[in-house]
Amino acid sequence: MHFETTKDGFTLAIGNRTILSHSSDSPAFFAGFGKERMDMYRGNFDIEDYVIERTALRHAEVNGDSVTLSSSPGQAPRLRLTLDGNAIRLTALDKTVNRLWLRIVAETDEHVWGGGEQMSYFDMRGRRFPLWTSEPGVGRDKTTEITFKSDVSGKAGGDYYNTNYPQPTWLSSRKYALHVETSAYSVFDFRNDDFHEIEIWAIPERIEFFAGDSFTDIVSALSLRFGRQPELPEWVYNGAIIGLKDGANSFARLEKIRAAGTKVSGLWCEDWVGLRQTSFGARLFWDWQANDTRYPHLRQKIAELADQGIRFLGYVNPYLCVDGPLFPVAEKAGYFATDAEGKTALVDFGEFDCGVVDFTNPAAADWFAEEIIGRNMLDFGLSGWMADFGEYLPIDITLSNGVDAKLMHNAWPTLWAEVNAKAVESRGETGEALFFMRAGFTGVQAHCPLIWGGDQSVDFSRHDGLVTVICGALSSGLMGNAYHHSDIGGYTSLFGNVRTAELIMRWTEMAAFTPVMRTHEGNRPRDNLQIDQDEAVLAHFARMTSIYVALAPYLKSLSAEAAESGLPVQRPLFLHYEDDRQTYEIQDCYLYGADMLVAPVWKAGETQRSLYLPGDGEWVHLWSDTHYRGGRDITVEAPLGEPAIFYRADSSQRQLFEKLRTIG
Amino acid sequence: MHFETTKDGFTLAIGNRTILSHSSDSPAFFAGFGKERMDMYRGNFDIEDYVIERTALRHAEVNGDSVTLSSSPGQAPRLRLTLDGNAIRLTALDKTVNRLWLRIVAETDEHVWGGGEQMSYFDMRGRRFPLWTSEPGVGRDKTTEITFKSDVSGKAGGDYYNTNYPQPTWLSSRKYALHVETSAYSVFDFRNDDFHEIEIWAIPERIEFFAGDSFTDIVSALSLRFGRQPELPEWVYNGAIIGLKDGANSFARLEKIRAAGTKVSGLWCEDWVGLRQTSFGARLFWDWQANDTRYPHLRQKIAELADQGIRFLGYVNPYLCVDGPLFPVAEKAGYFATDAEGKTALVDFGEFDCGVVDFTNPAAADWFAEEIIGRNMLDFGLSGWMADFGEYLPIDITLSNGVDAKLMHNAWPTLWAEVNAKAVESRGETGEALFFMRAGFTGVQAHCPLIWGGDQSVDFSRHDGLVTVICGALSSGLMGNAYHHSDIGGYTSLFGNVRTAELIMRWTEMAAFTPVMRTHEGNRPRDNLQIDQDEAVLAHFARMTSIYVALAPYLKSLSAEAAESGLPVQRPLFLHYEDDRQTYEIQDCYLYGADMLVAPVWKAGETQRSLYLPGDGEWVHLWSDTHYRGGRDITVEAPLGEPAIFYRADSSQRQLFEKLRTIG
Repeated sequence: MHFETTKDGFTLAIGNRTILSHSSDSPAFFAGFGKERMDMYRGNFDIEDYVIERTALRHAEVNGDSVTLSSSPGQAPRLRLTLDGNAIRLTALDKTVNRLWLRIVAETDEHVWGGGEQMSYFDMRGRRFPLWTSEPGVGRDKTTEITFKSDVSGKAGGDYYNTNYPQPTWLSSRKYALHVETSAYSVFDFRNDDFHEIEIWAIPERIEFFAGDSFTDIVSALSLRFGRQPELPEWVYNGAIIGLKDGANSFARLEKIRAAGTKVSGLWCEDWVGLRQTSFGARLFWDWQANDTRYPHLRQKIAELADQGIRFLGYVNPYLCVDGPLFPVAEKAGYFATDAEGKTALVDFGEFDCGVVDFTNPAAADWFAEEIIGRNMLDFGLSGWMADFGEYLPIDITLSNGVDAKLMHNAWPTLWAEVNAKAVESRGETGEALFFMRAGFTGVQAHCPLIWGGDQSVDFSRHDGLVTVICGALSSGLMGNAYHHSDIGGYTSLFGNVRTAELIMRWTEMAAFTPVMRTHEGNRPRDNLQIDQDEAVLAHFARMTSIYVALAPYLKSLSAEAAESGLPVQRPLFLHYEDDRQTYEIQDCYLYGADMLVAPVWKAGETQRSLYLPGDGEWVHLWSDTHYRGGRDITVEAPLGEPAIFYRADSSQRQLFEKLRTIG
Repeated sequence: MHFETTKDGFTLAIGNRTILSHSSDSPAFFAGFGKERMDMYRGNFDIEDYVIERTALRHAEVNGDSVTLSSSPGQAPRLRLTLDGNAIRLTALDKTVNRLWLRIVAETDEHVWGGGEQMSYFDMRGRRFPLWTSEPGVGRDKTTEITFKSDVSGKAGGDYYNTNYPQPTWLSSRKYALHVETSAYSVFDFRNDDFHEIEIWAIPERIEFFAGDSFTDIVSALSLRFGRQPELPEWVYNGAIIGLKDGANSFARLEKIRAAGTKVSGLWCEDWVGLRQTSFGARLFWDWQANDTRYPHLRQKIAELADQGIRFLGYVNPYLCVDGPLFPVAEKAGYFATDAEGKTALVDFGEFDCGVVDFTNPAAADWFAEEIIGRNMLDFGLSGWMADFGEYLPIDITLSNGVDAKLMHNAWPTLWAEVNAKAVESRGETGEALFFMRAGFTGVQAHCPLIWGGDQSVDFSRHDGLVTVICGALSSGLMGNAYHHSDIGGYTSLFGNVRTAELIMRWTEMAAFTPVMRTHEGNRPRDNLQIDQDEAVLAHFARMTSIYVALAPYLKSLSAEAAESGLPVQRPLFLHYEDDRQTYEIQDCYLYGADMLVAPVWKAGETQRSLYLPGDGEWVHLWSDTHYRGGRDITVEAPLGEPAIFYRADSSQRQLFEKLRTIG
């Protein structure tokens, strides 16, 4: 990679792909100064920028591997670019600059994917994506009542681009990937025909490029760059993780679920820490240790479950409530982030305040890893947990490392993942203890073994329902997150929106073809149908866990492949059919490894599924054994219990797949 | 006024008020280039700007009355400012510039009013106001269901700044006014503490300043600058204008209304042109001549009404439907604006298409004034009409004068007003025929004798109900529009929102203290209560028309004052109490001339009204004769029929006011 001087500027190419094209008439770089307004309300951000200056850096002076940019000849240089392997290092020569815009050459028919975990649009072309970790929104579609009501009641409606896990990285159909190394607020704008614009509220350290002959090569390279997860623990293959938060009653309910023939690998009780009553209902008590009132003799119970081959999982997040016993310990040790007056910064989570453990303070991070996750959780017998939050770092607090909280906000999920991973490693449990996160950012891949798709609404909606989980799996998968899963049945039930049996069943049958099956009671368990409350739902669920277990050898091979090559378990169709442009926008089907294609039914009341079969090989419909030639649109029957699933006729795993058909 | 050179820039002051303060460190001028996206859907605009460059013009060279601005010393000059009396002329020296931002010095506790006719916020400080004529929105408040549903169903919800009548003019509490002479899209941004930012999507011709010792002086000066209306016609003082659109049945209904004791000055039938049936319901037939089917023998009916001292009013707008007889006449003569292919540009108004008569073509404007308004309306016997629309000029059509339709869009309402005024003048009916418009822009004052506040929702809502009419009257009044009125009972009934008797009565009793009382049946007459459908409503209405008529001598004196001095009939409290800063944000009361203060009840279910009485004089409560000293907050009883109204104890009109108390 080198700068090619042109008459009036320069170009930069990777292989035969021109990536940068700069001239004084058509500059690729703009620098300036802005003043942002950022308001946070419980993890939802209202962000607005007042751009005071945006100056085209028209004049470029190329010196070998370095380019100096200024607004015009004779003017003070404002930015330097330096080639560094497959990256451009950026140096601010004008320290007042706090905004940078750059344009990457685009082709009209180009597609782009990534941006971290995107829940609404897998192909990002034609839209603008702010990249800032936050609540993803409830409804996420300004035309729906739920979004409207969520906006009005708590600024919580969100939009298509809101995500727990943004990442300034994209993969282009031009067979390259681009990554911006920065934790500042940034925006990918793919709305223009001939360029993509990147906006960054800082001068980023580097822009990195990854090119390859195939998409799989590039995805492997990204996985190496950002970190690779260990293989799934063996115990996960035993069945589903059952999420119950019913105190001691959870054990009896688990028994009933197992009695229906359900294969179970774990019991996940997020209320293991006890409850707090608020006017919104019961909330968890945010002090991370077993609560003997809600779960008497939990240690013994965990041992009893272990005897039956069932693991126990819990819950943790990076906050400590002021009225819990851990808070004064942390405060005394100076582990909390502070406010403008140097006092512990308190965050209101809805009738209770919490301190933010400052993970930029190594002692605080070590303490959380050792004392909380290590001692209170792993040593206590937990085999996994939801490592919740990570998106809420307030932007007005003071951190131990002295970096502006606005610059640490996006970096926080990765620090949080690191604390969890360090604790797991300290007990030698890497690849054995399984924690799952919804928040993410660049580098989370190296620490978090399993992504969970966050809090969908309990419905079939286009932007917050079942189908969004596929988009999340595919986009995050390209960024090097091999394992993705979701709350079966969704999570958020508000404004009278409640689960139907159909929704749980459709979600279950999709989840059987993802790395991990896990249920969740949702935010309002009593208002919503649970898997153990309806015979048909429970029987369907039990059958799907059998299918999951039967398919485990294949999943295990995919997990080995992921560890080896960085390819995710759930893959967009184009990853293996890269010349078939018809696959580039598909986001409601996925390849489950190279040999299986999964097309969940994601609309209410539908009993057929239409989809595009890629390639020119032969595909076998899992349930009917009907054979189809690829390269065409087809429609198949897909009643409850038979999501549209196909396998390659030439798969070496064919016999395994055929067996699934017999599981009644 | 002259430029004062400073060490590193210049300042400009009016009297002792510094208006511009420019230095290289803190520049007041920014020039650049943007690419806008403007989508219109039935008069509602979705506008977004991509600012490609925004360059601070840091370097100023002052030469007497001229300043040349560039980004830095030695760089090409981009903008020239030249003093021209109390204005700055602006000249673009760089023709690529299509965006200008400039900062006017602000004080922290400064208030600003104006912006044309603003319906939500009279004091504009703290908010940003795009200035672009459009539909004002239904609901105009993103937290209400009606706004949400209007947005989803027709992009029609609007927001606080949407208005039929924007104008880039403000009045400051620093006792100066500023006007931007441009018809380009512009924005007033009053969100900053130490400056107001003006954004213009063009280099404007001039920035004009008006300073004075008193607010009344400045308002008089603005009225001279923009044009002054004639006095109200004598016939208006005879009572209310009754709006009915019931075909021939309107006459019988009018009789019933009169029989109840109602004082009537006019009958307004917008359906005089006949109807068209669409799936949305009955619409007017947009071909401007009397329809003999809907109104048989209309000419004779008009004469009969005249014998009873009642005028007849109609309706017109600047479009002609393709299936009417006038369309081919105009098309043949080349009077329509054209599309990209040179054909007549057609605008869809909901199941019917119309041509846009091109008022930049003098022949077309003359034809419309002479043949349509002159012959079909005035000669036919109409004494007035609603001159509707003016906000919908499509931005992608070709106009006869060769100017970009984006630059003509804001200018259109004034052209439309001019066509109407010209027709009236041609018949010697100026000051006698009364047309009323909701659309406006700079200069509409010279042509339109009466503003109508547009289409409120039929409710008490904060941003689209009764109270918004006061804000509209006060803001437009400061810009030199002396006469304002509104649809009694509101207009827009959607999504089950319908008129209550209370709403009609509250609106009526406010309207009795405005220049013109006029009813409207609303967009869905059959679903909504009408004044002649409820005995109590009709009796209340009749009484209020008697009060209006009894008060007419006072109104007439205000009209004479308006013609003389340009002061509006409805005035913000600060206009006569300019040192009383407590009055600066009041927008739900108004002075009716100098001697009367009107505080309508604008919330449902309220029977008291709290308000601030300005000054240190004595105020008399109209209904109870209770005396109050000014300078304090008070609360008075305000049952239906007794809006909170006060007059100055020392008023020369005291006897007249006292008489109102006796009207039962």
